[in-house]
Amino acid sequence: MATVPLIEHANASPSVRAVYDDIKQLRRVDDVNNFWKALANSPRQLEQVWSEVKTVMQPGALDALTKELIYVAVSAANSCTYCVHSHTAAARAKGMTPEQHAELLAVIALASRTNGLANSLQVPVDPQYQAG
Amino acid sequence: MATVPLIEHANASPSVRAVYDDIKQLRRVDDVNNFWKALANSPRQLEQVWSEVKTVMQPGALDALTKELIYVAVSAANSCTYCVHSHTAAARAKGMTPEQHAELLAVIALASRTNGLANSLQVPVDPQYQAG
Amino acid sequence: MATVPLIEHANASPSVRAVYDDIKQLRRVDDVNNFWKALANSPRQLEQVWSEVKTVMQPGALDALTKELIYVAVSAANSCTYCVHSHTAAARAKGMTPEQHAELLAVIALASRTNGLANSLQVPVDPQYQAG
Amino acid sequence: MATVPLIEHANASPSVRAVYDDIKQLRRVDDVNNFWKALANSPRQLEQVWSEVKTVMQPGALDALTKELIYVAVSAANSCTYCVHSHTAAARAKGMTPEQHAELLAVIALASRTNGLANSLQVPVDPQYQAG
Amino acid sequence: MATVPLIEHANASPSVRAVYDDIKQLRRVDDVNNFWKALANSPRQLEQVWSEVKTVMQPGALDALTKELIYVAVSAANSCTYCVHSHTAAARAKGMTPEQHAELLAVIALASRTNGLANSLQVPVDPQYQAG
Amino acid sequence: MATVPLIEHANASPSVRAVYDDIKQLRRVDDVNNFWKALANSPRQLEQVWSEVKTVMQPGALDALTKELIYVAVSAANSCTYCVHSHTAAARAKGMTPEQHAELLAVIALASRTNGLANSLQVPVDPQYQAG
Repeated sequence: MATVPLIEHANASPSVRAVYDDIKQLRRVDDVNNFWKALANSPRQLEQVWSEVKTVMQPGALDALTKELIYVAVSAANSCTYCVHSHTAAARAKGMTPEQHAELLAVIALASRTNGLANSLQVPVDPQYQAG
Repeated sequence: MATVPLIEHANASPSVRAVYDDIKQLRRVDDVNNFWKALANSPRQLEQVWSEVKTVMQPGALDALTKELIYVAVSAANSCTYCVHSHTAAARAKGMTPEQHAELLAVIALASRTNGLANSLQVPVDPQYQAG
Repeated sequence: MATVPLIEHANASPSVRAVYDDIKQLRRVDDVNNFWKALANSPRQLEQVWSEVKTVMQPGALDALTKELIYVAVSAANSCTYCVHSHTAAARAKGMTPEQHAELLAVIALASRTNGLANSLQVPVDPQYQAG
Repeated sequence: MATVPLIEHANASPSVRAVYDDIKQLRRVDDVNNFWKALANSPRQLEQVWSEVKTVMQPGALDALTKELIYVAVSAANSCTYCVHSHTAAARAKGMTPEQHAELLAVIALASRTNGLANSLQVPVDPQYQAG
Repeated sequence: MATVPLIEHANASPSVRAVYDDIKQLRRVDDVNNFWKALANSPRQLEQVWSEVKTVMQPGALDALTKELIYVAVSAANSCTYCVHSHTAAARAKGMTPEQHAELLAVIALASRTNGLANSLQVPVDPQYQAG
Repeated sequence: MATVPLIEHANASPSVRAVYDDIKQLRRVDDVNNFWKALANSPRQLEQVWSEVKTVMQPGALDALTKELIYVAVSAANSCTYCVHSHTAAARAKGMTPEQHAELLAVIALASRTNGLANSLQVPVDPQYQAG
């Protein structure tokens, strides 16, 4: 149902297999999810995105769960069905409780509502909010 | 520059003033920001949104700063200029460090990128991601 | 500040002037607004969009004001600053009252909120909602 | 297929059942639709959103059908599959004719087109459109 | 699964059939795709959109394939599932190679990423970029 | 006016200066544009995005101008004011003619329109469009 064929491990080139194996080992899963199988049509994209995911999503000044919550929020605002599903699952795997999920949804809902209002009202930015 | 007049405290009705005073007291500011002055054209919306903001944004299963980060993320994805400005400032006021801001931006950038990819590839959702 | 020069009546070609004159006459204004001056860089687009605006926005099964309200709603959701401004003004010119504006904003706000929730929850469509 | 389990009446808590029963009675339906069953994972959200829907969508300065048309327009612009389906059905239930539906679509299409143009052209807002 | 019935050739009015036949002849296909069958509920929209598609998408200052690539890019950014599928197929039919598809996706991904960044940073437009 | 300070060359760290100098040399400009000055608050993002821009935007299976056109299209759909301005200017610098610009806008307008229609109609994807 994708716009490109999904590339399975058995049919993958060595460089694609290497990324698949890295994903499987790091995430302790038996198979990579469909996003990577679609992305593998461009081995460069596959390597580049996976490298960026590993770097950006690791704990740093923000912890790993907070990063997943932000990821879900962006994906919902961008109507990315696949990304909402995969990163909600990732957030759960990183310990998101039902109470945290409910609060995430409440903030997304509130922000969406006030975004709609501010975009309708075309509110001018207050001078004190401008940093640069 | 808004699509409605901004209502200043001096010209506000008693019910609008009551909300303004509550905002000023809770946030320890001398004046409310433009969003509320625009929203005050509908006193019901003003009361309802402020009440929701107070409820949703208070610390709970997620802390107050995490909620602001999620708010900024949704607002950036929705291209809401005003909301990005006001909630970036709110996040700073709640302690967001430059390092945390940089990581917030890195997650927004990565999510936007993979949203674009998944929406272009129309990747089918893996069965294990479906909860309901 | 546009990405193309704005073409004033004095510098316009005869075919562009003809559209400008039609807009001015129909709307009883002294000058066309900036959208048309930018669009005039492509005379075909100018004619085609103006023709479509005249056809679609005239009263039919829906009255002219209802159509402007729908226009504002789409423009706010698409974060189109210019379009929100121009069509809010158009709705006022067609009789939108402050009470109607407030209710328009309330529906936009509610829809934005539940859009954010449904996109986060990825709610499956109920069978009874499917017509085709 | 949702990111949360759908909560059926039989498994719902008393406060959730009370909302379900209110929805069923007001809408004269045998069961609530999936949106509410997903939202019920957070009883507070369920109560709050349902209360807001009842208040905002009732006839006021705008009639109930006009409000549904606006709702569909926002939902289409936000690519909310579920919301487009449920509110198109709601508009039909409130009397939307095929001719009105066709005109709604024509306005959404025209607004989407000019939003795309104005966002590409970055047309500056004319001074006369600014109210605040 | 659409919000309107899909109108098949056998049940179509003469004016709808004429458009269907024109599409089938020009594209050398046995049947029109679902978009047209849904749009046919409004014969005017059907004729108007098909006429615009024929005019806009023909080779001109930009070749036909470049136009399809732009179409896919807009559709992905707008989360239009149907449009991404149909115009990716159209691009392939016009000769898009897997290498070109991969580069199209890379540009969409990069633009989405920097859009997210610029919208988060609210970067002011440099004076030299303003033409009008 | 940004949400972060803009970092000028004189105040930049050596690693930031190195990127600035590379941009200036490659683009033959006297100063980098504001996007980079904002991004420089996170030297890692600056380096990473600039590296990706250089790789992705160079001529390959698609030529450099086609890539800029796609970039503008995504940016317009995402309502990224800054990105539309900077990449329209970049397209001009790479040889975009006014006729090509007009056709780019016509395709963006048409795609936006049919995106709005397909999202309103919720047209099911035809089986022949599914590759994976």
